[in-house]
Amino acid sequence: MLSATKQTFRSLQIRTMSTNTKHYDYLVIGGGSGGVASARRAASYGAKTLLVEAKALGGTCVNVGCVPKKVMWYASDLATRVSHANEYGLYQNLPLDKEHLTFNWPEFKQKRDAYVHRLNGIYQKNLEKEKVDVVFGWARFNKDGNVEVQKRDNTTEVYSANHILVATGGKAIFPENIPGFELGTDSDGFFRLEEQPKKVVVVGAGYIGIELAGVFHGLGSETHLVIRGETVLRKFDECIQNTITDHYVKEGINVHKLSKIVKVEKNVETDKLKIHMNDSKSIDDVDELIWTIGRKSHLGMGSENVGIKLNSHDQIIADEYQNTNVPNIYSLGDVVGKVELTPVAIAAGRKLSNRLFGPEKFRNDKLDYENVPSVIFSHPEAGSIGISEKEAIEKYGKENIKVYNSKFTAMYYAMLSEKSPTRYKIVCAGPNEKVVGLHIVGDSSAEILQGFGVAIKMGATKADFDNCVAIHPTSAEELVTMR
Amino acid sequence: MLSATKQTFRSLQIRTMSTNTKHYDYLVIGGGSGGVASARRAASYGAKTLLVEAKALGGTCVNVGCVPKKVMWYASDLATRVSHANEYGLYQNLPLDKEHLTFNWPEFKQKRDAYVHRLNGIYQKNLEKEKVDVVFGWARFNKDGNVEVQKRDNTTEVYSANHILVATGGKAIFPENIPGFELGTDSDGFFRLEEQPKKVVVVGAGYIGIELAGVFHGLGSETHLVIRGETVLRKFDECIQNTITDHYVKEGINVHKLSKIVKVEKNVETDKLKIHMNDSKSIDDVDELIWTIGRKSHLGMGSENVGIKLNSHDQIIADEYQNTNVPNIYSLGDVVGKVELTPVAIAAGRKLSNRLFGPEKFRNDKLDYENVPSVIFSHPEAGSIGISEKEAIEKYGKENIKVYNSKFTAMYYAMLSEKSPTRYKIVCAGPNEKVVGLHIVGDSSAEILQGFGVAIKMGATKADFDNCVAIHPTSAEELVTMR
Repeated sequence: MLSATKQTFRSLQIRTMSTNTKHYDYLVIGGGSGGVASARRAASYGAKTLLVEAKALGGTCVNVGCVPKKVMWYASDLATRVSHANEYGLYQNLPLDKEHLTFNWPEFKQKRDAYVHRLNGIYQKNLEKEKVDVVFGWARFNKDGNVEVQKRDNTTEVYSANHILVATGGKAIFPENIPGFELGTDSDGFFRLEEQPKKVVVVGAGYIGIELAGVFHGLGSETHLVIRGETVLRKFDECIQNTITDHYVKEGINVHKLSKIVKVEKNVETDKLKIHMNDSKSIDDVDELIWTIGRKSHLGMGSENVGIKLNSHDQIIADEYQNTNVPNIYSLGDVVGKVELTPVAIAAGRKLSNRLFGPEKFRNDKLDYENVPSVIFSHPEAGSIGISEKEAIEKYGKENIKVYNSKFTAMYYAMLSEKSPTRYKIVCAGPNEKVVGLHIVGDSSAEILQGFGVAIKMGATKADFDNCVAIHPTSAEELVTMR
Repeated sequence: MLSATKQTFRSLQIRTMSTNTKHYDYLVIGGGSGGVASARRAASYGAKTLLVEAKALGGTCVNVGCVPKKVMWYASDLATRVSHANEYGLYQNLPLDKEHLTFNWPEFKQKRDAYVHRLNGIYQKNLEKEKVDVVFGWARFNKDGNVEVQKRDNTTEVYSANHILVATGGKAIFPENIPGFELGTDSDGFFRLEEQPKKVVVVGAGYIGIELAGVFHGLGSETHLVIRGETVLRKFDECIQNTITDHYVKEGINVHKLSKIVKVEKNVETDKLKIHMNDSKSIDDVDELIWTIGRKSHLGMGSENVGIKLNSHDQIIADEYQNTNVPNIYSLGDVVGKVELTPVAIAAGRKLSNRLFGPEKFRNDKLDYENVPSVIFSHPEAGSIGISEKEAIEKYGKENIKVYNSKFTAMYYAMLSEKSPTRYKIVCAGPNEKVVGLHIVGDSSAEILQGFGVAIKMGATKADFDNCVAIHPTSAEELVTMR
């Protein structure tokens, strides 16, 4: 909690502000998931709240992340489902195979953009409903510790506040040392594409690259995935790495393993790219190159003017209560980079406002970053909570963990010649077999994981899993009957 | 547990058996889900086990229940998905609307039958692997308490056993008081249909009728559903009743509410049926009539010869340890009728064998019939665990329960003109808001429910639900963020 000294420090600052400075109880820099959630929650407690956003409300998630990504995933998933129709006895007079697949990318992009735009409006309305003031512009701390906003009309306004949240999010890293890197784009650029590339190269083994490669392939683009290692999704349990890597290869995605890009060139006549790799191989006639090699904090809000400390990755350092080193300045979400997930930023933002502006019972409210579930909208989906088998061995010793494995073909695929895998792993520790990790690949994994997440967060053991009667026929039932 | 007296009683019987009688440690009548699971588990402990099955291994579930039903549900669901493709920008040069839907029922039935046949074989192999003897024939208790089996080759064999399980399952009830009832069929008959009916009448508001009506409609049959009340699925929470009833009506299923069939006639020229209802209305030119008005125990195994007690519904009475009133004769599954679900029979069967033949630690093993999840493969799916809001009010008093409601359109439908509903309800009791009921309707409900089932069985409170970070974007995340 804030000490009396810290409070006095801020009070002094506030006393020295100019008469032109508008004052708020709470000022939030960044109208993404975390910022909006925190601002609304603060205002709901009566705090006079200002939200400053430079681009569009909803931040990465709504505009260039989870939402349009999931919409594209739905399209890609549906394309695959439709290609199953004939084998399911449906529309057999129509050629619904992958060779005949067409996708009206331009029209669908418009539709997707319109949906995102509707969501922007809903965010705006929700903020208005909670009486949060919203200003569009670039916010920057000045040396006084106040926030200067260069608004869209190019005027500048200065604001002070008792509490300031920095939730400016993140952005893609480009490999600036690779000649021609600028010929490629990032995931933001993916969402700007007006036409479907015939041939596309996605670089990176993280979840963003895996999701985009899956979408492109499902929609019929010739898809190349360039990864440094042997497998994708290296931050996840090996069962997820191997299952998705193998299936992507099997499905026909050109996975270039142990590969690095050394140069990118553009053919000025054809406008196509030539991607040179470390093994003297190249990928030619490429329409789009997408870098998904990592993300970094979105800074530039003058954190240096107030002395907000960054870590070695240039991410804002925030403690478990989202406090930065500067009194009354807080930070959360991707700019902190601890767990870069929308619901984490939302939960952290709400809990911060509970703590700062809520009733006494919330005075110590904070987000528990343990056992946060996360999912990958690959084809098929994957999801994970807790630690991997490898981490469990390191943490508990091999003799103290028990691992349950299952691999099967879901019933849906029994009618189909091409199968998609289902792979489940439960990692248990100690004599009670407490579930410390759950790693799943297969259809509906994202939906399946949520409830098991609740159970694991409650401290579920393998016996607790088995104690619930199975739901038949589902894939999830396998998780309560594994031996 | 079995008293010494009871043990002696059986021992006497065993001593009086003829020399032609083959003796087993465990004899299971009925090779359905419960019987097979129990037999395999018993044999795994070294018990000499015989399984007697009259028809096909796997029972209702594999042959005329869960499995082929889910396969048909997949076909029907996929037909609906394909009709979304054009709006998703896919295959826009092909007319993938419902008007152009064709379904090759005969071919698909063959494929489905072949799959079921494969499963029969897997059941057989698994039983062989565990060294369970399998005999195909009709089993019947004789007056000595032994089991006579009329085998497929018409020879009869007599078996005795230390322990006998009756797991003969259930069968459909026909309304024998309605003239012409025999012109209709039951769900077994549904699975025998070689051709898709153009116009079909399904009678009954229970989950079987709702599932079959959904399948027919999705595959393009003109579907009529005749129900006695105003809503379907009367055993479930009102939110499920209303959401599914309203959506079925909206989707174009002809739901005849407050209706009873009084007579069925066949037009000998057209071979079509005319269904007369109580309000003098009728449904004409019907190809198939399917009764799904309830199920009853499958008896006929001579339970009267050993004095097994039945309840007023002619179901075998078994206690929580699956004991009947007759020493060393046990019963479970649909013939008992307590909770007619495959996984319940499986779990009960395994636990019984654990208790009878397993190690000491299982001496009191029994299935807990509280908080068993169940789902309905309607369109969309629905699922339920625990008690309804109405039951909670009765049990705890209105002032002691808190109900959380949510109704929304899942993101998938944002791109579509026709929406399918998602409706969630959490029923909590007491000051800690313990979750006593969860009722969900929407895509993937069956998969979503399993993990929440584990949590609820563990005693989850609303706070436990909210304590798990949401998985975004999913439908399930709504369950951990409801206010």
